[in-house]
Amino acid sequence: MSQLQPVSRDEALLALDALLNAMPPVAAMGVRASAGDGDFLRLQAPLAKNLNDKGCAFGGSLAGVMTLAGWGLATCRLQAEGLAAEVYVADSQLRYLAPLYDDLLAEARLADGERWPEVLARLRQRRRARLSVRALTLDRRGAVVAELDARFALIIPPSPGDAPP
Amino acid sequence: MSQLQPVSRDEALLALDALLNAMPPVAAMGVRASAGDGDFLRLQAPLAKNLNDKGCAFGGSLAGVMTLAGWGLATCRLQAEGLAAEVYVADSQLRYLAPLYDDLLAEARLADGERWPEVLARLRQRRRARLSVRALTLDRRGAVVAELDARFALIIPPSPGDAPP
Repeated sequence: MSQLQPVSRDEALLALDALLNAMPPVAAMGVRASAGDGDFLRLQAPLAKNLNDKGCAFGGSLAGVMTLAGWGLATCRLQAEGLAAEVYVADSQLRYLAPLYDDLLAEARLADGERWPEVLARLRQRRRARLSVRALTLDRRGAVVAELDARFALIIPPSPGDAPP
Repeated sequence: MSQLQPVSRDEALLALDALLNAMPPVAAMGVRASAGDGDFLRLQAPLAKNLNDKGCAFGGSLAGVMTLAGWGLATCRLQAEGLAAEVYVADSQLRYLAPLYDDLLAEARLADGERWPEVLARLRQRRRARLSVRALTLDRRGAVVAELDARFALIIPPSPGDAPP
């Protein structure tokens, strides 16, 4: 069976922080989940751990934190729904609009037109679904300095108790 | 003036390694330049420093190493040409094709149809140019597990000795 005990969204955020810290490159970037409600997720990371050669934020860190925001949005929602699905990034488009001299703050939401009920129904029915996410990196004044559009694959792996296909 | 003393390509690779190590998130990923000839650049990083929650390479690290490969390709070539230009990533498209359970190995080359002489002529003339790069991540058998197409902005900053515009 693929059903886990559903957890509250706060518990999902705490579980996400533990997952983030368990990944060496993510722990090195100092990424932590600072807010989320199931429809959006905010991650933050200190600039000092993410500097490039020009004294502003490394583009690879922006890519990493925005990708993680999308991945974490999906991971938290699936946990809150009690679904034991894996979340893989499939592809993404990134635009770097301005250098960032502040701490990193990325927010992810579903892409326009994407809706959780439909995605979850598809996932429960076929054990696989695609999820389109949009993430933004904001500076301290709230201006967008980088954007990511990404698609994730949600996959419920077979478990020992499942009937053979 | 924007002309620096031209350096050999080996010196440019060593200088690149120093630049990579000076960036905290890049040093944390253990990225180093392992080969390059001015038309391609190969970067490597150990899997252990770039693990995700599934025991394979973190997508953000793949994005970071491929972006750095493109950035480094441009940086090395500009140094070899004696051009003191800054290199900024402007946008990128990433495709994640398969999980990677090996050390990270990324190779960057100019995109199809892009040629250094034209890019360098544009940069020398206008002090700004765009550069399109393609980077691949390969597994230990040489299969492509992730792809990046990126555009970089090359910019020669004004220097104190320049005449005012």
